[in-house]
Amino acid sequence: MANSLYVGLDVGGTTMKAGVVDDDGKALGSVSLPTEAHLGQEFGLERMCESIRQAVASANLKISDIDAIGVATPGTMDIPGGLILDPPNLKPWRNVPVRDYIHKKFKLPTAFQNDANAAAYGEFWAGAGRDVHSMVLFTLGTGVGCGIIIGELILEGEHSHGAEVGHMKIEMTKPRQCGCGRWGCLEAYASATAVVKRAVEKLGKRGAKSQLKPMMNKEGGLTARDIFEAAAAGDAVADEIVEDTAYYLAVGAVNMMHTIDPNMIVYGGGMIAAGEDFLKRIRKHVLQLAFPVPAAQTHIVYAQLGGDAGFIGAAGCARQLQQKLKLSKKK
Amino acid sequence: MANSLYVGLDVGGTTMKAGVVDDDGKALGSVSLPTEAHLGQEFGLERMCESIRQAVASANLKISDIDAIGVATPGTMDIPGGLILDPPNLKPWRNVPVRDYIHKKFKLPTAFQNDANAAAYGEFWAGAGRDVHSMVLFTLGTGVGCGIIIGELILEGEHSHGAEVGHMKIEMTKPRQCGCGRWGCLEAYASATAVVKRAVEKLGKRGAKSQLKPMMNKEGGLTARDIFEAAAAGDAVADEIVEDTAYYLAVGAVNMMHTIDPNMIVYGGGMIAAGEDFLKRIRKHVLQLAFPVPAAQTHIVYAQLGGDAGFIGAAGCARQLQQKLKLSKKK
Repeated sequence: MANSLYVGLDVGGTTMKAGVVDDDGKALGSVSLPTEAHLGQEFGLERMCESIRQAVASANLKISDIDAIGVATPGTMDIPGGLILDPPNLKPWRNVPVRDYIHKKFKLPTAFQNDANAAAYGEFWAGAGRDVHSMVLFTLGTGVGCGIIIGELILEGEHSHGAEVGHMKIEMTKPRQCGCGRWGCLEAYASATAVVKRAVEKLGKRGAKSQLKPMMNKEGGLTARDIFEAAAAGDAVADEIVEDTAYYLAVGAVNMMHTIDPNMIVYGGGMIAAGEDFLKRIRKHVLQLAFPVPAAQTHIVYAQLGGDAGFIGAAGCARQLQQKLKLSKKK
Repeated sequence: MANSLYVGLDVGGTTMKAGVVDDDGKALGSVSLPTEAHLGQEFGLERMCESIRQAVASANLKISDIDAIGVATPGTMDIPGGLILDPPNLKPWRNVPVRDYIHKKFKLPTAFQNDANAAAYGEFWAGAGRDVHSMVLFTLGTGVGCGIIIGELILEGEHSHGAEVGHMKIEMTKPRQCGCGRWGCLEAYASATAVVKRAVEKLGKRGAKSQLKPMMNKEGGLTARDIFEAAAAGDAVADEIVEDTAYYLAVGAVNMMHTIDPNMIVYGGGMIAAGEDFLKRIRKHVLQLAFPVPAAQTHIVYAQLGGDAGFIGAAGCARQLQQKLKLSKKK
């Protein structure tokens, strides 16, 4: 197994990122290309192949140097079937046979995985979770992505809906509507989008005083970053929003501690720019909400691989696949 | 492996049940003895041994016919350590080395497991879940017990707190207090105890008319069974309580469908006497709350092994252990 090389490809709604990764999870270079999903899925499949080719070239390698390929995409999807189904972030794609296409093109073992699961596996293999047995990754951005790793098990679920924890219901009495159309989901409280929405609501109240008010009219509008920065600067309204966000994330973390009971909860995505103070707030609420043993023993930390987690994790899935193939050859 | 025999022992707060189980998960007889935890843990350990001996005798077998033993107990516990720690249902026991004691007494491989996890494994191996790859069992009684099985993985967690899903937080705005002392737990809404509590609250409201009212003063007080029966007989207040219970259980089920994404959600415990109508109500809410694919494809059913699930599952854990030991001998 030593000195094997893999290509991981992480397809997102806006860009796709591909890189060559070695057996220790180290990236040997990567490339990003625009996804341009609107140009159709045939174009998209070709662009995936092009990303893989460019990633290999950027590492001064040839395809024949590569042992296996892993591709991660947003859902909806059929993971064991290797298919993208009807993903809201890749319109108008539908029923795209990603795994078979890439496999036929490069004649290499090809793994297929959900992008949030792949990011979690990346952090597990080569990032924040590299010394633990199990972890849950929450990626905080427009939505709340999640991936769950237990040992070498990536919790895909039986219908490719494992670890959709952003859509765990945490409120019944006054549930907020989520981007998914349902109500009371964690994502409707704790995504960057939700943070801004809650802030705008608070700022709209009569008498609300905050340095955030003028920012509502700036180009691009108020951002989660503005809110975290204002909180750090002592703005009371912003502080309340940040504190509530920490509470909601703690609820999500505790629900995972009482279900998966992992070694580690990891937060990734843009919101981790909020820094150590934000983690401390989350940990404080976890101590109130969780059973004493997991509350004391579960590590709560930030992700380490940034935007590379997805393609590194996809490469990790390629490595898992190659190991399985080797084992089955032995038998 | 054929024709191996196991003893499973399920230790509860009131009684312990032991039985001999064959390789197909079939019980060949069982015995129940009172736990009498108040008599102390030395007494308790001896009573466990006595249950095992009596179970073997009841199947007309000798200890030498048995291949391995499995013991399940309520938490708190250290599952890999084989220890009961400080269980609220077995006072005044504390730091009881169950696995080592039983192992030394019978000189047989001995597995140790949480009782709710064992019940889930029992249903997975020989009950409702025998044809599926993964399942979540909710046991509805005084509390809400839970066990999660994914393939041959019993989700114990890293700190023996896996599948404590009764203590998943589902409400933030007006959370009810749970028996665990925390707030907003599923158990505070959907256990048999919580059903009665909610009914008593509703019946105490001015003008509430219900056939349940006179039952509040009967010996033992109102029970969940009374409420389900009154609902079936058309009592409007009871019907509302049952409908709310179905909703809360659906929230718990959906949160598992968006985390574990199992093939099957199984309900066990006394409340399943409510029958098929209650399952239909749960399924109806699941269709509203869950993503379409898991909502359509996840089986929602009742448990099949009743009070035997625990010892059968414990025997299944013994069988898992024996298989591991055989594999490690091979190497």
